[in-house]
Amino acid sequence: MALTLAHRKELCFWGWGYSDEGLNQAEEAQMQHLAAGLGATHKPGAAPLLEEFDLSAPRIAIPDTLAAILSATPYDRITHGYGKSFADMVRMQLREMTHPPDWVAFPKSENDISALMDFAESSGAALIPFGGGTSVCGGVEPDVGGDYSAVISVDLQYLNRVLEVDRTSRAALIEGGALGPELEAVLKPQGLTLRHFPQSYAFSTLGGWVATRAGGHFASNYTHIDDFVESVRMLTPSGVMESRRLPGSGAGPSPDRMMIGSEGTLGFITRAWMRLQDRPRFRASASVKFPGMQEACAAVRAISQSGLLPSNCRVLDPVEAMLNGVGDGTSTLLVLAFESADHPLTAWIDRALELAGDYNGSWDHEAVQRSMSDVSPGAEGASEHRKGAAGTWRNQFLRAPYYRNYLTPAGIIADTFETAITWDKFDDFYKGVQERMLKTLREVTGGECLLSCRFTHIYPDGPAPYFTFYALGSKTGDMASMLASWRQIKLAANEAVTSLGGTITHHHAVGRDHRPSGYDSQSPTLFREAFAGARQVLDPQGIMNPGVLIDTPARGATSGGIMRNYQSQ
Amino acid sequence: MALTLAHRKELCFWGWGYSDEGLNQAEEAQMQHLAAGLGATHKPGAAPLLEEFDLSAPRIAIPDTLAAILSATPYDRITHGYGKSFADMVRMQLREMTHPPDWVAFPKSENDISALMDFAESSGAALIPFGGGTSVCGGVEPDVGGDYSAVISVDLQYLNRVLEVDRTSRAALIEGGALGPELEAVLKPQGLTLRHFPQSYAFSTLGGWVATRAGGHFASNYTHIDDFVESVRMLTPSGVMESRRLPGSGAGPSPDRMMIGSEGTLGFITRAWMRLQDRPRFRASASVKFPGMQEACAAVRAISQSGLLPSNCRVLDPVEAMLNGVGDGTSTLLVLAFESADHPLTAWIDRALELAGDYNGSWDHEAVQRSMSDVSPGAEGASEHRKGAAGTWRNQFLRAPYYRNYLTPAGIIADTFETAITWDKFDDFYKGVQERMLKTLREVTGGECLLSCRFTHIYPDGPAPYFTFYALGSKTGDMASMLASWRQIKLAANEAVTSLGGTITHHHAVGRDHRPSGYDSQSPTLFREAFAGARQVLDPQGIMNPGVLIDTPARGATSGGIMRNYQSQ
Repeated sequence: MALTLAHRKELCFWGWGYSDEGLNQAEEAQMQHLAAGLGATHKPGAAPLLEEFDLSAPRIAIPDTLAAILSATPYDRITHGYGKSFADMVRMQLREMTHPPDWVAFPKSENDISALMDFAESSGAALIPFGGGTSVCGGVEPDVGGDYSAVISVDLQYLNRVLEVDRTSRAALIEGGALGPELEAVLKPQGLTLRHFPQSYAFSTLGGWVATRAGGHFASNYTHIDDFVESVRMLTPSGVMESRRLPGSGAGPSPDRMMIGSEGTLGFITRAWMRLQDRPRFRASASVKFPGMQEACAAVRAISQSGLLPSNCRVLDPVEAMLNGVGDGTSTLLVLAFESADHPLTAWIDRALELAGDYNGSWDHEAVQRSMSDVSPGAEGASEHRKGAAGTWRNQFLRAPYYRNYLTPAGIIADTFETAITWDKFDDFYKGVQERMLKTLREVTGGECLLSCRFTHIYPDGPAPYFTFYALGSKTGDMASMLASWRQIKLAANEAVTSLGGTITHHHAVGRDHRPSGYDSQSPTLFREAFAGARQVLDPQGIMNPGVLIDTPARGATSGGIMRNYQSQ
Repeated sequence: MALTLAHRKELCFWGWGYSDEGLNQAEEAQMQHLAAGLGATHKPGAAPLLEEFDLSAPRIAIPDTLAAILSATPYDRITHGYGKSFADMVRMQLREMTHPPDWVAFPKSENDISALMDFAESSGAALIPFGGGTSVCGGVEPDVGGDYSAVISVDLQYLNRVLEVDRTSRAALIEGGALGPELEAVLKPQGLTLRHFPQSYAFSTLGGWVATRAGGHFASNYTHIDDFVESVRMLTPSGVMESRRLPGSGAGPSPDRMMIGSEGTLGFITRAWMRLQDRPRFRASASVKFPGMQEACAAVRAISQSGLLPSNCRVLDPVEAMLNGVGDGTSTLLVLAFESADHPLTAWIDRALELAGDYNGSWDHEAVQRSMSDVSPGAEGASEHRKGAAGTWRNQFLRAPYYRNYLTPAGIIADTFETAITWDKFDDFYKGVQERMLKTLREVTGGECLLSCRFTHIYPDGPAPYFTFYALGSKTGDMASMLASWRQIKLAANEAVTSLGGTITHHHAVGRDHRPSGYDSQSPTLFREAFAGARQVLDPQGIMNPGVLIDTPARGATSGGIMRNYQSQ
């Protein structure tokens, strides 16, 4: 039996990255230090093996016509059984997969996808669109509930081409299954870039970004993938829904905005025309220190309302700065950058620094980069040389998901949550989240913990804060009890964020894990019902990713995944 | 019987503006010259009077509980019987109103609106949300078709307060019925402005702007009212749908984006939190001449892709420039401006001019405004002093709708249509629209005509072109035959714009007039069906503005208004 029908390099199925990747010596020492500091004494055992998973047999047989694109090998089923959340990592350590996909499909065309939808409708199966599988909120977990006969995870990796480039309008028609590096490699020779660099960039896909409203490279103005979508083509069980390429329109509610963020519940995003950027040639940047968060926030608020639109405007609170190796734990930092393919940015950075100075920001005047420089492209390779604090930060940013491969088996809970909130509420929100989360972390884990915050994106009316926490999950390496602890913490985070006025997610998506304690309480009930009405038209049998985003009452599918299990305990 | 339940100044019911406004002598001479140039010889008769309209009696009785907020006076019914399209103006000249609203409601609270929805559901009536009534596409016309017992136009003018201002986040909670000048008057003392100045600014409302995706002041980046919406509160027949105030979110499809552009088909927008601007203190501007449209477009494309984000980037083709009194009919003009509340804009304007120079643009170096200046607020008053070409243009822009009060009875067809299209298609589109429209205009009217084009907004992937045309509709003042001619021209415009790849509307909305020849062919069928599915949840009896945007098959309501009449002829 073949290992896989996939054509991509072998993934580390139980963690982040490819199977031949790992931490280097310095990183391992760094993680060891972090874990020890939190009280971990357990020495991680061997990494999980595919054969250690006890997979139940597929519950339905498949027709011969689909045999060439459906796989039930352990590698395919297990790599499509979870996303990359902390809970997913722990369950991999537990060698536990209660809801593996019965089959994994690798369609090679839209016709294949249509055939899969027909088969699902006739056989009573559910389908889960699968891009890169990097969901950190249970978005691809085949725990769909309801009366489905089986679950098929549908991996779009064969639909990964850039079909057309329109240099004049700076746009490209890209297939939904294209990974970040795959599409950038085609655009680069034309001097173009999508410039969408989420942390998952190397392992996530265009279709996944659009379906989950991924957050990208630009700190302001073009914050979500939404802003780059010119048109979308979606295959739904009821047929093709494809919007017209338009730079802007006022003709009724935007069709694109119904598909953007639909998280696989309406259909498959097979291709999209995406707005591109010229590759940047100019960059201006600086790092600013502030006495505390309040001053930094006031400065960033002024910058966010100035119309200067920095490409980077990352506030790091003292803990965050320290954890990222760019601070000593006493100062709040602001990493500020502007970039352009068109013009030098002296006026921009100078005015932004003036505003920072108005709120007691200080910076090394010699270290400010103002001049034209040959800026290297985005996140094409983690090894690419970058200088100074920005380079250090970028490397940490791309490497952070790998660190969990070490920390999880070592018994450390390492997770993040993120939101956005208006400026008027931010001070109370920040204090409130810190108080509640530190209390919960200490009560649940009984030990030391770290909680840090940075801004990933800024808007004139508020920031998008991103929280990271580390705590000792288990001294003895008891993964089951660590998972139970994490569930309590995750629930507290969902509740803190939404009850204090934020959104349950700024760019990680809703999935199965951010409801019901988050999304269901934040979003208008009537909106969810109206969206379900729209879905009923596009997916009358409710076969598309049930349990994500909204319920599918006709099939008995409610919010699934790890948080449902928690609720019922 | 009272003249009206409205509390606003008396409107010119048959044309644009208030009843005490008119053209000044110079304007009248200018219009006379224009009309004569097109071959008009007819001398307009007296303006229509309310008593000349033969209104049928309201078809349903109203309950005592609603008597205080429902009016059936001729002034109220006639001012709510049409919008302000060319066809509306002509029908006013004809003293013809086949579908007046049976009643006009003036709710004073959300409770009143709920009571009206209850009454409509129980009595079989349809409701039409009415903001300022400036629709130019049949958006408020009570020609709903179907089996409705009556139509009630619901005027939100009593819900016109600014309820709350959040200076920190720069946002305000504004009621849906607030006119532009009403809300700006409240914001001004706080140094804030919504800065949304459509041509209809003085006569249109926040709720109307949001419901129709109105286009605003900024030529780039913040082009539609959409971009300023932080959250929306909508009263639907199924209850309240209110989104959370958030600067950004990635939690599922945006609830706001379902309400924005819904054109009254889902419910009433009673209030919205809107993102505001600080009042601008700096401005830089210049006028650039180009040898032709191609060079001007190339320059504007470069500017649109530069990231400079001008507040004004208006290309005027030679005819447009001449008609607006800022050109001699030989040059293509670019009016360029930047504005800021935060910083001088020398670097911005200088780089934009460099780009214009790259494409053979030339300008008077002495006339470029670069320095700090005390910029007066937006379009608060047409009489406000403005210097140079920008001031001339702005005055023409605000006065243009008034000119139709003169031109229509004089037998001149004067109308506009607008769209957006990607840069790669623009050259062919511009040529194609000109060829088709000039041919149609000449064939239909048999006389001279003028067709001009400007860009109202620009995007990195394409412009939003806006076309204006003038033609002799009738030498003898035969309004019925002029209306028939206009219908043929309007249909040709709808078809030209959409079949050549544009959107049927960039910011005028869909209404009843842009379907079926436009919207229905441009938008994805499945999207309209899905949107109808959502509507079915929010408005199960289909009482909300039937015939606009989508059909209401359960009630037999299809696209209504003047274009349906045309289709059936």
